[in-house]
Amino acid sequence: MGVDEYLSELKRKVAASLPSVRVKNVEFEGPVLVIYVENPQELAESGDVIKKLAKDLRKRILIRPDPKSLKPPEEAKEIIRQIVPEDAQVTSFFFDHENGEVIIEAEKPGIVIGKQGVMLREIMKAVGWSPKVMRTPPIKSKTVDNVRQFLLSSREERKEILKKIGVKIHRGSFHEEKWVRVTFLGGSREVGRSCYLLQTPESKILIDCGVNVSNIQQSPYLYVPELQPLDSIDAVVITHAHLDHCGLVPILYKYGYRGPIYLTPPTRDLMVLLQLDFIEVGAREGNPVVYESNLVREALKHTITIDYGVVTDISPDIRLTFYNAGHILGSSIAHFHIGEGLYNIAFSGDFKFERTRLFDKAETNFPRLEALIMEATYGSGNDFQPARREAEERLISIIKETVDKKGKVLIPTFAVGRSQEVMIALEEAIRTKKLEGLTVYLDGMIYEATAIHTAYPEYLNTHLRDMIFHHGLNPFISESFTQVDSSSKRADVIDEAEPSVILATSGMLNGGPVMEYFRHLAGDEKNTIVFVGYQAEGTLGRRIQKGWKEVPLTSNGRREVVEVKMNVETVDGFSGHSDRRQLMNYVRALSSRPEKVITVHGDESKCLDLASSIYKTYKIETRAPMNLETIRFV
Amino acid sequence: MGVDEYLSELKRKVAASLPSVRVKNVEFEGPVLVIYVENPQELAESGDVIKKLAKDLRKRILIRPDPKSLKPPEEAKEIIRQIVPEDAQVTSFFFDHENGEVIIEAEKPGIVIGKQGVMLREIMKAVGWSPKVMRTPPIKSKTVDNVRQFLLSSREERKEILKKIGVKIHRGSFHEEKWVRVTFLGGSREVGRSCYLLQTPESKILIDCGVNVSNIQQSPYLYVPELQPLDSIDAVVITHAHLDHCGLVPILYKYGYRGPIYLTPPTRDLMVLLQLDFIEVGAREGNPVVYESNLVREALKHTITIDYGVVTDISPDIRLTFYNAGHILGSSIAHFHIGEGLYNIAFSGDFKFERTRLFDKAETNFPRLEALIMEATYGSGNDFQPARREAEERLISIIKETVDKKGKVLIPTFAVGRSQEVMIALEEAIRTKKLEGLTVYLDGMIYEATAIHTAYPEYLNTHLRDMIFHHGLNPFISESFTQVDSSSKRADVIDEAEPSVILATSGMLNGGPVMEYFRHLAGDEKNTIVFVGYQAEGTLGRRIQKGWKEVPLTSNGRREVVEVKMNVETVDGFSGHSDRRQLMNYVRALSSRPEKVITVHGDESKCLDLASSIYKTYKIETRAPMNLETIRFV
Ligand SMILES: [Zn+2]
Ligand SMILES: [Zn+2]
Ligand SMILES: [Zn+2]
Ligand SMILES: [Zn+2]
Ligand SMILES: [Zn+2]
Repeated sequence: MGVDEYLSELKRKVAASLPSVRVKNVEFEGPVLVIYVENPQELAESGDVIKKLAKDLRKRILIRPDPKSLKPPEEAKEIIRQIVPEDAQVTSFFFDHENGEVIIEAEKPGIVIGKQGVMLREIMKAVGWSPKVMRTPPIKSKTVDNVRQFLLSSREERKEILKKIGVKIHRGSFHEEKWVRVTFLGGSREVGRSCYLLQTPESKILIDCGVNVSNIQQSPYLYVPELQPLDSIDAVVITHAHLDHCGLVPILYKYGYRGPIYLTPPTRDLMVLLQLDFIEVGAREGNPVVYESNLVREALKHTITIDYGVVTDISPDIRLTFYNAGHILGSSIAHFHIGEGLYNIAFSGDFKFERTRLFDKAETNFPRLEALIMEATYGSGNDFQPARREAEERLISIIKETVDKKGKVLIPTFAVGRSQEVMIALEEAIRTKKLEGLTVYLDGMIYEATAIHTAYPEYLNTHLRDMIFHHGLNPFISESFTQVDSSSKRADVIDEAEPSVILATSGMLNGGPVMEYFRHLAGDEKNTIVFVGYQAEGTLGRRIQKGWKEVPLTSNGRREVVEVKMNVETVDGFSGHSDRRQLMNYVRALSSRPEKVITVHGDESKCLDLASSIYKTYKIETRAPMNLETIRFV
Repeated sequence: MGVDEYLSELKRKVAASLPSVRVKNVEFEGPVLVIYVENPQELAESGDVIKKLAKDLRKRILIRPDPKSLKPPEEAKEIIRQIVPEDAQVTSFFFDHENGEVIIEAEKPGIVIGKQGVMLREIMKAVGWSPKVMRTPPIKSKTVDNVRQFLLSSREERKEILKKIGVKIHRGSFHEEKWVRVTFLGGSREVGRSCYLLQTPESKILIDCGVNVSNIQQSPYLYVPELQPLDSIDAVVITHAHLDHCGLVPILYKYGYRGPIYLTPPTRDLMVLLQLDFIEVGAREGNPVVYESNLVREALKHTITIDYGVVTDISPDIRLTFYNAGHILGSSIAHFHIGEGLYNIAFSGDFKFERTRLFDKAETNFPRLEALIMEATYGSGNDFQPARREAEERLISIIKETVDKKGKVLIPTFAVGRSQEVMIALEEAIRTKKLEGLTVYLDGMIYEATAIHTAYPEYLNTHLRDMIFHHGLNPFISESFTQVDSSSKRADVIDEAEPSVILATSGMLNGGPVMEYFRHLAGDEKNTIVFVGYQAEGTLGRRIQKGWKEVPLTSNGRREVVEVKMNVETVDGFSGHSDRRQLMNYVRALSSRPEKVITVHGDESKCLDLASSIYKTYKIETRAPMNLETIRFV
């Protein structure tokens, strides 16, 4: 059945289910079935009919008002302002033409909604647009704004892209044979350049496409013949925004890929932030150019966001569902349902099987699961990390001691993930007076990354969401945090007499604003540097951690030697990765026991150790493949 | 370095090594460097210079007289007839334009050669062609003649093909990365449709491309993306002529492959014989047409024969050498030397690690060997076969008993391999009077297959060669053998009062002339049917072997039930495959111990059992992959 027949059949079914609604058109945009309706107000009353229809059709459905029934944005804005009482404090409108929605941001969203949504219905009747109300985010994120603006400006092109993708997804199945296999193209028996090809006779799905951050010359094996031509790939799926999982996505478009990128909304925004930063850092350090920002935008144009738990067709025989991975904002386990009940395989990405300050622990509840491709960063028998609570207590006591000596605490961190975990822990300690009257400075991309976190409160754990929504207490906007965004401010922070805590990038001291702090603070034994993340061999961070008393540094092209007199501490336990115990527990906790577990994303010995332990403990078949190998599952 | 630069450098080197020889041109034809010489007579004296040059250049070299220096064939024939004494009994001339050779077949080849080759030199001076003298084969093979004639008639086209292949082989290496991997496309954890893809960043080599004889719908997975387009394959290498290894080679040309097929000369001729028979049998049984004879010829046009032990460049980074596999005529172990010393991997094909009547046991002596892909037909712990000698004794005593009762012995066999082994054993028994005055009838393709054996005496074992060449005793032409080639002769054999032995195809009684014999001989308890080969489940042979007393039969479209009163015997030990003990011993006997052994070409349980036994016994890493999997070696 081609897409045209499919659509006309759908049209008949929709008309039968919604007799009072005037359906103008039905079409696919990417994986979503869009129903254009002339009288969308009718639907406001009959929400369940749509849900039922979606379930029957096994399709994601989006109702869009017929464009003719929408007031022009400027006019609509005026009408809404007249309807909504002033004390709602509406701060912005965003007209989403793709979905026929108007997003209304307000300080008091409850007032815009009205009793039982009465005001929303009034707005819709008056302007045609379907209103969505959001709390005005407490910190403005440039990235979120830029992404929104860019998608809006490329709306027409995007619509064409989505239609083509829709046709491709619904092209029908042609092969009688059934098989499922995965080729490992990067990130196997190593950390970095994660990339996997999931294949059936019908489909090719690329999962992640990362850089090897410690050696950017080493790409995934994208040139192998099974990927050629690149546009034979049906879909790219990104588990999370770290560069070792998405850093090379833009070059796919350089070499001919034109298809979709599926990811969660926060992953999309963080990915753009980190890819642009990757370009900037590369240029600053004189690395060969891997790609330029136009390709980041080209990739962005092809993104299709999916929230956790939403089942989505991404090819004729594959359905994708993202589940929380607990690793960073928007991080997901990508679950693929293949054929109609033929096979289920999940790629864990990086995951944390422990509840943290920010996230719930990784999901273990899948409708079905026959194979799991899982990370093994801490896969060795001795890779145990202290519990998060212990780690926090140690960090706070180290800070306390330093503050008591009137010293400063420097914490090098990556912008995304660990920074926010440390921030929330510090905020609580300050609020509960474990630490008193302390300023926490945020330098580098940390502030912007935090702003993106505040834009997606629904991706944080239930406790944090509850605090933000019901107790009006958003730890990210605590007055204890101060952004540092210029070198003069940086100098002030360094010169200040008061003790303070400084979170600055990069996490391993191979560049970034942390270098400037380190140069000035290293010589004073009152100060402390605290490592909360893994320090790779060969980095400056590793040398300091090992206790070098003098370290060579290059700043502004000048080489100097910095004496390290400051106190050097390491606090384990803040990792976003599951430790050995959590990895093992995760496999046991899975709601359906897989037949096969494949270990990746870890040094060779860790992948092998974890694979053999899972086999011995649970009698599940395991493998630790090499890059370029292919494993068959069906 | 492109092929042009390469050639001009070679030209300089050749000129420097052979100053007295007037080199007209140097070019690649396939893997071979052809040197056109104006005065080839000069070279007759300096044979070693060419050998040394070949070694220095690491190239196969062929000297060809400049076509201008060659007499036209008809004229040359006359001149040679005048030079050679009549009693040499020259029976035919064959002018090989590709090599500038004239093949002279004579009953007494020694006379044509003359004392220390004096006559050969005289011939060359007189006609320009380089003479090769061969003993007139005792049985004429239609296949061998047809193949020669076809290659002669497509000489011009073939030359163009070979030149293109030469350019492709010498295109140079471009990738900095080094890796080696093998994808299993058929014949893994099963017997049938053997097909493997050997890959490096530079090259793609397809090893074997067989049918699944028991289910011809099941091809190897030729449609997978790593093979697309098919013409991206550099070379097809065929280990031996059985259809489960070469039956689908012709369809490669249907789907776009245009490259070479490397095989031994007997494999080429047997392959053509068996492919044409495959078409004929398929048509007779009303199977869907897989390919037609034009594609068999198209494939033949692209064959490049290589004798055992000759090292040949087949791609920029891969050298192929064939070694004796002891399985059937021309069967080989394909050894690949990759990179300059990077890796060595051998595909055993089917092999016999026991000296048989026809062949030496499979080669174990390789310059280097890191990985072995080996067959596992008899890979289980209990797959032991009696020694050949025992098997022969049993067969002869069964025949003796039947003959004593004046009965007839029917032996169903495949045309190639087992038939000839049984023939030689019977010939010896008759010659040494263990069996007396017995006629052995050969029906079906057995006679033609035997004729091909007599055309390649150098591919038989040393003992047999010695008997043929030095003792003038060719067992294949014993007067005890009588060909049956018509249904009237067949009726005579059946009606004859005298006892006799009948070898007839097919080996499992699923068609062929054996059926007619069985129908008429089954009802008489004086007769005996002897199974010397494996009877697959579901075949008539298997039923008879199991002791069914009545079997249904369809002949000339009429169904009938045949009563089985004849004596039914099974003699194990004639297999062309190594039994379990031989498989294990082979691995131990290898001159260089491989790092990895991969088991294929056997039922799942046999592949797994053999792999695990080799691991346990020799501590060599083993794998038993599934079809569609890829294993990396470097
Ligand atoms: Zn990560
Ligand atoms: Zn990662
Ligand atoms: Zn196809
Ligand atoms: Zn064979
Ligand atoms: Zn075979």
